[in-house]
Amino acid sequence: MASLADQLDIVIPTIRNLDFLEQWRPFFQPYHLIVIQDGDPTRAVRVPEGFDYELYNRNDIERLLGDKAWCISFKDSACRCFGFLVSKKRYIFTIDDDCFVAKNPKGEDINALQQHIQNLLTPSTPYFFNTLYDPYRDGADFVRGYPFSLREGVPTAISHGLWLNIPDYDAPTQMVKPLERNTRYVDAVMTVPKNVLYPMCGMNLAFDRSLIGPAMYFGLQGEGQPIGRYDDMWAGWCTKVVCDHLGLGVKTGLPYIFHSKASNPFTNLRKEYKGIFWQEEIIPFFQSLELSKECTTAADCYLEISEKVRAGLTLDPYFVKLADAMVVWVQCWQQFNGGPGPKPDGRS
Amino acid sequence: MASLADQLDIVIPTIRNLDFLEQWRPFFQPYHLIVIQDGDPTRAVRVPEGFDYELYNRNDIERLLGDKAWCISFKDSACRCFGFLVSKKRYIFTIDDDCFVAKNPKGEDINALQQHIQNLLTPSTPYFFNTLYDPYRDGADFVRGYPFSLREGVPTAISHGLWLNIPDYDAPTQMVKPLERNTRYVDAVMTVPKNVLYPMCGMNLAFDRSLIGPAMYFGLQGEGQPIGRYDDMWAGWCTKVVCDHLGLGVKTGLPYIFHSKASNPFTNLRKEYKGIFWQEEIIPFFQSLELSKECTTAADCYLEISEKVRAGLTLDPYFVKLADAMVVWVQCWQQFNGGPGPKPDGRS
Repeated sequence: MASLADQLDIVIPTIRNLDFLEQWRPFFQPYHLIVIQDGDPTRAVRVPEGFDYELYNRNDIERLLGDKAWCISFKDSACRCFGFLVSKKRYIFTIDDDCFVAKNPKGEDINALQQHIQNLLTPSTPYFFNTLYDPYRDGADFVRGYPFSLREGVPTAISHGLWLNIPDYDAPTQMVKPLERNTRYVDAVMTVPKNVLYPMCGMNLAFDRSLIGPAMYFGLQGEGQPIGRYDDMWAGWCTKVVCDHLGLGVKTGLPYIFHSKASNPFTNLRKEYKGIFWQEEIIPFFQSLELSKECTTAADCYLEISEKVRAGLTLDPYFVKLADAMVVWVQCWQQFNGGPGPKPDGRS
Repeated sequence: MASLADQLDIVIPTIRNLDFLEQWRPFFQPYHLIVIQDGDPTRAVRVPEGFDYELYNRNDIERLLGDKAWCISFKDSACRCFGFLVSKKRYIFTIDDDCFVAKNPKGEDINALQQHIQNLLTPSTPYFFNTLYDPYRDGADFVRGYPFSLREGVPTAISHGLWLNIPDYDAPTQMVKPLERNTRYVDAVMTVPKNVLYPMCGMNLAFDRSLIGPAMYFGLQGEGQPIGRYDDMWAGWCTKVVCDHLGLGVKTGLPYIFHSKASNPFTNLRKEYKGIFWQEEIIPFFQSLELSKECTTAADCYLEISEKVRAGLTLDPYFVKLADAMVVWVQCWQQFNGGPGPKPDGRS
């Protein structure tokens, strides 16, 4: 379980920090990296020697997706989902370049990737809550009163990791608590129950492309869009609804990474401003969203969600454009991943 | 927050172990104890000096409840709910006599009662999952993407604590893993989300009588009944459905106690045998149970559940008797707690 190098890609939305890969070298070097260079394509991104990687800048995205390239956000870490699209592996681990190796309470370096793999390779338990957390961990099990018919669990599609040091707070909370640091190491992994939504953060996230890939779209954010910092939230709401519908699991908890730097709360407030209002309507929308029985794949589900978004999220014209982008994204996914239609770049 | 001695009773279903209260003395002595002496009423129960307590044996239960006494289980720790009935306090902490003071990872004694009180006095968040666990703890908060309209939370009705050393396993798991010990201290408290059921264990449990008391009935178990070890599970399913309906919260996690002794798995299997089958039908029954808008108190809700149990749990005639007992329990609750009707024992 230690390495799945031939089955997992690491996707990084830009690398501004030279220390980043050096610190992760012992853990990442066996894996293939996909770096999405955000912003100015002429800026050089330096990847240290010894890493196996491919690098895409905006020109590459335009070239590969052609008139569909607009569905990939520009000047926003939402661009990472382009890496999900072009990967050829079953599993993805995505991490931000201000996230470093954390230490467990014994002072040992945490191999975040290994824990994500363990989370993804063991089942989830979305239909009943296990009070001793992940029943598949060593030294744990299902407690008295847990139905035996549910102990096989369901396949895990998503592993959501957490952050020591700088917690993932919104701008208002950052402003109110500028000095707050997360120092509490909670030694738990748990399934987010069925029909329960959670705020999925893209900083430290792994998933199974074959199960949920077509729904792991980070939306339209950043330049030219009215909103930022809701890319991962959007993907989190959509993928959770899809997982619930398809009988797949979402885990949260371990592994921790060390989040080194709080982003600027004033910049963040500008990006989040509309989202703070919108989420009050979007979340109830997703909480009550039901998918039809005909949807049997993540792509089916995602296309049906796009229709519901177009018809139901009438709070701003932005959501019509987003619904269009969701459809285009699925078209791109199918092009790159064996769906119908010609494949770009000569691959057929 | 350290002491709520005038607002909390500790309910203990029998005391067989003299060390039990000695070990808890620093934490329990400020509080009033209600001991329910299970089994033979002529056996002497010894409470060490210095504790303020009242003791009820079966003769007392018969005398106080008269022809309603049959709703209190005999020769089963389910009898503890008689203590919930006769308490005059707002909060209850109930604990088994094989549960001792646990130590946190620093080696310090855990004041379980204090943590339960903290859990009960801070809100719960059942409508959306917070990935950094209880947002009201020091050093924690709501993460990015948590709707601001939900950050007030809801009143907490139940605090479910966990167990180090001997985990609360069913008989089959005990038999398969006789040596398993829980050594993982998970430093977290969390809300069990709305519409999610969990296996509530009565070993280390606190609740707010004023919010949920009439639904905290431990059913008909033990002597003369076809089932045991499902008393707390029954109470857990019912109270969770009631909390969800009334907009109240249930927390699980900290505090830990040290569970010293595994009960006999063979005896347990005999007690659990029918429950293992029945829970496969009972849990879906509770998962789909909806209460009417007219139910605005825990007692209302509980009476409506009793009707639904009578009509819907047709898997065994036992559930008709249990439905009757639920009604009688609520009558007793109202007698002892200011409901309509004469009060027993001259209290009016």
